[in-house]
Amino acid sequence: MQSPLLNYMNVRIAGVGLYLPSKIETAAQVATMITHDEHWIISKTGVKERRVSEVDVDIMGAAAGKEAIGDGLPPDLIINASGVPKQTIPDTSVFFQREMGYEGIQSFSVHGTCLSFIIALNTAAAFIQCNSANRVLIISSDRGTRGRNFDEPESAALLGDGAASVLVEASDGVSQLHHWNMKTWPSGANLTEVRGGGTNKHPQDPDTTAADNLFTMDGPKVYKMAMTRVYKLMEDTFKAVEFEKNNVDWIIPHQASLKAVQAYYQYGGFNKNKVISIVEKTGNCVAASLPMAFVSAVKEEKIKRGDLIYLIGTGAGFSAASALLTY
Amino acid sequence: MQSPLLNYMNVRIAGVGLYLPSKIETAAQVATMITHDEHWIISKTGVKERRVSEVDVDIMGAAAGKEAIGDGLPPDLIINASGVPKQTIPDTSVFFQREMGYEGIQSFSVHGTCLSFIIALNTAAAFIQCNSANRVLIISSDRGTRGRNFDEPESAALLGDGAASVLVEASDGVSQLHHWNMKTWPSGANLTEVRGGGTNKHPQDPDTTAADNLFTMDGPKVYKMAMTRVYKLMEDTFKAVEFEKNNVDWIIPHQASLKAVQAYYQYGGFNKNKVISIVEKTGNCVAASLPMAFVSAVKEEKIKRGDLIYLIGTGAGFSAASALLTY
Repeated sequence: MQSPLLNYMNVRIAGVGLYLPSKIETAAQVATMITHDEHWIISKTGVKERRVSEVDVDIMGAAAGKEAIGDGLPPDLIINASGVPKQTIPDTSVFFQREMGYEGIQSFSVHGTCLSFIIALNTAAAFIQCNSANRVLIISSDRGTRGRNFDEPESAALLGDGAASVLVEASDGVSQLHHWNMKTWPSGANLTEVRGGGTNKHPQDPDTTAADNLFTMDGPKVYKMAMTRVYKLMEDTFKAVEFEKNNVDWIIPHQASLKAVQAYYQYGGFNKNKVISIVEKTGNCVAASLPMAFVSAVKEEKIKRGDLIYLIGTGAGFSAASALLTY
Repeated sequence: MQSPLLNYMNVRIAGVGLYLPSKIETAAQVATMITHDEHWIISKTGVKERRVSEVDVDIMGAAAGKEAIGDGLPPDLIINASGVPKQTIPDTSVFFQREMGYEGIQSFSVHGTCLSFIIALNTAAAFIQCNSANRVLIISSDRGTRGRNFDEPESAALLGDGAASVLVEASDGVSQLHHWNMKTWPSGANLTEVRGGGTNKHPQDPDTTAADNLFTMDGPKVYKMAMTRVYKLMEDTFKAVEFEKNNVDWIIPHQASLKAVQAYYQYGGFNKNKVISIVEKTGNCVAASLPMAFVSAVKEEKIKRGDLIYLIGTGAGFSAASALLTY
């Protein structure tokens, strides 16, 4: 049976890039900044170490972007798909472009917190499919460690820094984006927040506190909200396409926490060996986490051309999204 | 001659909404906050009055969104296309959805400062064309007055508050998006900025100043950068489609300043009576300016079904973008 959505979009990921800051911060080092020890951190978050960047998101992202482009021609669209911007105005895509040495390329940002990469992937594919662009460079770059609130030990122990990039082009016939879906439930809007940085808790307002500018998350409530909703999103995906769950070669989840990654094989119906996990070594790198996991697996030659891969995750909102593609 | 791009995307703007805060602030009132008088403000910016909102961007945007939806079914995608967010995380689309009383609708933000609406329009059209969405609600809502730096009198005298929304659906056969284009030149990245609000000048950094969190613009340099680049963008548009410049019924420019709006008829080759201008009454409302001008003209029954309209503008980046459509 051919589903009408089988060849949803004729695109391929033609290049990949990764930037891992060289500085490693272990759970033992984070323990000195919070009121819990190394063992609590590892048992609670699963994060044994994370990278901490000493350069800003534009330099990190441009390094990943340059690797994705390689010796190839410049892209004709650059999409920033990060969780937190370099600054309010202009949007971060401009600074990626500047750091890459380009001028005159259309560029903008999409933002859906930790789902920004999945949203950007569908946006890039739709722009290519509609002849708005031919070579789209997506860059996700986040310095989660800049937003750590050490008075909130669980989220502070989760966050890390990193960047990843992919180049999207028209398909050569093998690669396809088969399906994409997303849902947002604003009843969970206050479960994961950085309340500052905009018009709500403006930096110049006297009642804006230091904590307003830092990351806050109610992990247990987010996990509870995610369980049924993510499962339903997966069911919707595999109802809409001709593939079955067991056709999937690799699941690339958002690396929210070790528990969140494990849920895909403990409750999600996927084989443990198919779930890509880098969270123990990188922590939760916000929007960069998912493409970092994907690019790492491509570089390690786990993911090969023709493999069926399923990107899935949750984000502040509360939102969930997924994309099924043949790499 | 039929251009291959003539029916670029089969979409129509099916509903429109506008939110104008009730509080009016005149040039004379702004003059009390800066070192120049009312006449300087009007001669320099053209802004006689602007609206100042006492509610936040989500409430403003949701009011415009509700009007665009009317008695219709909920959208299946909400795109926030504002210049400045409510807060860093989650993105503002979540808060629009919450204020509109919805739950479970996919929503995210696109950000290209003052060009966010034009980018979102093409994104909405591409999502509809590729069956990623059917009814897309775009909302632009900005409180420019929150970012005024009264030590920089020209930009402080320009900014205002407002929101606008459009509902985008598949075309009924008449309406079409014919062409869309955008370019970004990061050599102008520092000409228009809010340096705070992200990882660059983080609110908790001791060296982040109050001015870093406010809007700054080098108006003359931006204007100079815009002149040739916007003209070239228009030329590119009318080379790519079968329409001529004089087929355009209405030009809807970003309302950057009165001088920027006037440039479209003084140097751009368009008839003065075809250029929609609201800037004298609203100021520069960042990303909301362009859709506010568009929606105002629809509500005043200037723009009618079947009219050829040209949306065009500049944004921080430095960026320029345009969209040609049959309404």
